[in-house]
Amino acid sequence: MLDLKYPRKTKTKTNMKKILVIGAGLSTSSLLRYFTQNAEKEGWLIRVGDQDGALAASKVANCKNAEGFELDGLDEEQRSPLIEWADLVISMLPARFHVEVAKDCIKHKTNLITPSYISDEMKALNQAAIDAGIVIMNEIGVDPGIDHMSAKKILDEIEEAGGKMHIFESFTGGLVAPESDDNPWNYKFSWNPRNVVLAGQGGAAKFIQEGQYKYIPYHRLFRRTEFIEIPGYGKFEGYANRDSLKYRDVYNLQDIPTIYRGTFRRKGFSKAWDCFVQLGATDDSYILEGSKNMTRRDFINSFLPYNVNDSVELKLRHYLKIDQDDPMFMKLEWLGIFDKVKYDFETDVTPAQFLQRILADKWKLGPDDKDMIVMWHKFVYKINGEFKEINSHMVVKGEKQPYTAMSTTVGLPAGICAKMILNDTIQIKGVQLPIHKEIYEPILEELEKFGIVFHEQEVVEPVLYI
Amino acid sequence: MLDLKYPRKTKTKTNMKKILVIGAGLSTSSLLRYFTQNAEKEGWLIRVGDQDGALAASKVANCKNAEGFELDGLDEEQRSPLIEWADLVISMLPARFHVEVAKDCIKHKTNLITPSYISDEMKALNQAAIDAGIVIMNEIGVDPGIDHMSAKKILDEIEEAGGKMHIFESFTGGLVAPESDDNPWNYKFSWNPRNVVLAGQGGAAKFIQEGQYKYIPYHRLFRRTEFIEIPGYGKFEGYANRDSLKYRDVYNLQDIPTIYRGTFRRKGFSKAWDCFVQLGATDDSYILEGSKNMTRRDFINSFLPYNVNDSVELKLRHYLKIDQDDPMFMKLEWLGIFDKVKYDFETDVTPAQFLQRILADKWKLGPDDKDMIVMWHKFVYKINGEFKEINSHMVVKGEKQPYTAMSTTVGLPAGICAKMILNDTIQIKGVQLPIHKEIYEPILEELEKFGIVFHEQEVVEPVLYI
Repeated sequence: MLDLKYPRKTKTKTNMKKILVIGAGLSTSSLLRYFTQNAEKEGWLIRVGDQDGALAASKVANCKNAEGFELDGLDEEQRSPLIEWADLVISMLPARFHVEVAKDCIKHKTNLITPSYISDEMKALNQAAIDAGIVIMNEIGVDPGIDHMSAKKILDEIEEAGGKMHIFESFTGGLVAPESDDNPWNYKFSWNPRNVVLAGQGGAAKFIQEGQYKYIPYHRLFRRTEFIEIPGYGKFEGYANRDSLKYRDVYNLQDIPTIYRGTFRRKGFSKAWDCFVQLGATDDSYILEGSKNMTRRDFINSFLPYNVNDSVELKLRHYLKIDQDDPMFMKLEWLGIFDKVKYDFETDVTPAQFLQRILADKWKLGPDDKDMIVMWHKFVYKINGEFKEINSHMVVKGEKQPYTAMSTTVGLPAGICAKMILNDTIQIKGVQLPIHKEIYEPILEELEKFGIVFHEQEVVEPVLYI
Repeated sequence: MLDLKYPRKTKTKTNMKKILVIGAGLSTSSLLRYFTQNAEKEGWLIRVGDQDGALAASKVANCKNAEGFELDGLDEEQRSPLIEWADLVISMLPARFHVEVAKDCIKHKTNLITPSYISDEMKALNQAAIDAGIVIMNEIGVDPGIDHMSAKKILDEIEEAGGKMHIFESFTGGLVAPESDDNPWNYKFSWNPRNVVLAGQGGAAKFIQEGQYKYIPYHRLFRRTEFIEIPGYGKFEGYANRDSLKYRDVYNLQDIPTIYRGTFRRKGFSKAWDCFVQLGATDDSYILEGSKNMTRRDFINSFLPYNVNDSVELKLRHYLKIDQDDPMFMKLEWLGIFDKVKYDFETDVTPAQFLQRILADKWKLGPDDKDMIVMWHKFVYKINGEFKEINSHMVVKGEKQPYTAMSTTVGLPAGICAKMILNDTIQIKGVQLPIHKEIYEPILEELEKFGIVFHEQEVVEPVLYI
């Protein structure tokens, strides 16, 4: 059992603000650094529970106001007294578990922050949260999170000035910093590899362009990219996210003719990645019979027509129409997909699992590598009969690990938001997103002190589609 | 309420054999003709229940031993006394409802026949069926059904002769007869249009070739066709069915190096159909926002990149790399997909539903049109150190509607099987498929009298993949 060395809220009222963090995984490093560095000044008591108690303890070891311990965040009996104790909870659990935590928070009148996408079940708790006098802040990481705040800031400014939005585009990418970019894919994993392998799956990408609905099926997604240049960082390419349409409601842009959200990769990535999509190697919906005993070469060959004489290399080139001198082929070769190397899978796996295994070694962020988050928005609006365009971008590079750009841009917005809820700078109640000025303005301001800065520029000749 | 003019089995024993048919839809026409024509000779009493009582009555109007009536086949209270009355039930309900009927049949010790694929729940009833002393015969239509019987006959012959199977391939297609083939797709709907639009979806196609597992994702399926020539009928092309691997167990061919099952279309169909697959127009997984008000042209345009100047035609040609003189484009134009014609959908629909609506008009089997079923098997086996190859094919053309080839090849195997169960020619019990000699032999023999004949020939030089 836990040693509850700090008194519970229901028993004793202290002046200290009590924070409970559920989960101490990779993405919490910067968040916990922010908390521990500010604990004394802000008068915070911080408790961090994780399945791995030692890990949780190690992350707050340097802070006398904080303790880490073993916690099964899915166990209500363990979780509930801690939520009762806290003034504010940050749930870093997988997204599907947030609603249970939220219900506990409502019961114990404890504020809640999660970086995850809001679910319909979560939305349904709005009135209960208001009645409990708490805020449940969702989508306050990087994407979603910083994207909302930075976009909404400019959207609100345009609206206040009397402008009418015509085009909104927004791209974010979790990439490798140029100084650590040493592979032909210009990509390394700075986030859950599984999500990267499955990116874009589960339905057609939806958006609207000049009032026309547009749909891209998964097997075309990586061939319908846009190129964007970020000043000082060169060219990126973006592919469409699953559902851009829903952001019309989120951003109050119901009548906007064009809205498009996407994901950044370095130029050339998507075309090469599409080879795996075309083969069927990213499929996670079935078990690949025989895959336990397949070499990487066998794996690729299982998606190619049978022929006893032709090489797997030539069959792949022919099947995917890859020219002899196409650098894309070099990307594939560099991954070792044609090697006769076996893995030690215990059972047969899905194609996506096999591919992830190949990539995990090759796209690993080395111990001294730095990652990079790139975000870019485009706003075209009409004001006084004229079209205007503003572009806005942000680039954040990681520090020494584990303080990656990913960890920092996910953790700091949540950490700052926590501070502002606890010191009443943010007073909004209910189930919220960070799309209101009273939320995004102070958070964006403090983020700038950490180098998370948006650079805005007006484009002299707006780029329209018409 | 029904007028039960024939005594129930539990009350009176008559010498008449009692048959209950549940469902009187399109596919039952030939089955009911077989029953009514043989009723007097065989001493059958036949009851046909359908949601549309008038339809059921009309289909057996010419037979004094038969009656049709309104029946909700999903309502156990209505269904159960009829199953109790019958000696044998034929369930033509949608496949997912068969298990409930089967449970009633076990309870009342009534034999059951269905043309649908056997489910795991159905398999689980095997012992209960044996204990009840009944047979539950599944997959006894055309595909599945005639394919099993005709293949297993030759497979058993090869095994008896001491041969060892090396390659088994099997293709079936429901097509339009040459004399009614007057559109550029060489295709008309002779079966559920929805199944045609969704064909191949729901997972990669799986098969094995020379011991190597092969997987084809949906978006590649229609580009990995094989060409087969059927003597007297010209060239067909086949695309792979979802799961050929499971037939290794069904046919007791666990170690066979190559097994491949597929679907026939006329040559050129698949490449043109692939245009819709590539666009994403066959997707049934999401509602196409705005589709209620889309013209056919808008529908196609929603899958193409936005451009204010370029035509939908040119964008499609460019996107799918269709040459100016490619006859495939003519196929697409012939469907009217570029016309500014709206439908009267009441709500937004899925892409697949929109496409089905376009095709329903264009691929309709006209009132005087004849359909055609084509089946082809290839057997390569080793005997006395030598490879041998046998090909076997069947072509059945429809009579005047509603006696289509589809109705006849689905209904006759079931009807003949019913007769043989009732007259004890088939004595097997339990949950079965028509893969045993005692079942397939007499049925294939009688099918020949109806022109459902397999032509076998030995191939002089076996076609191997090695």
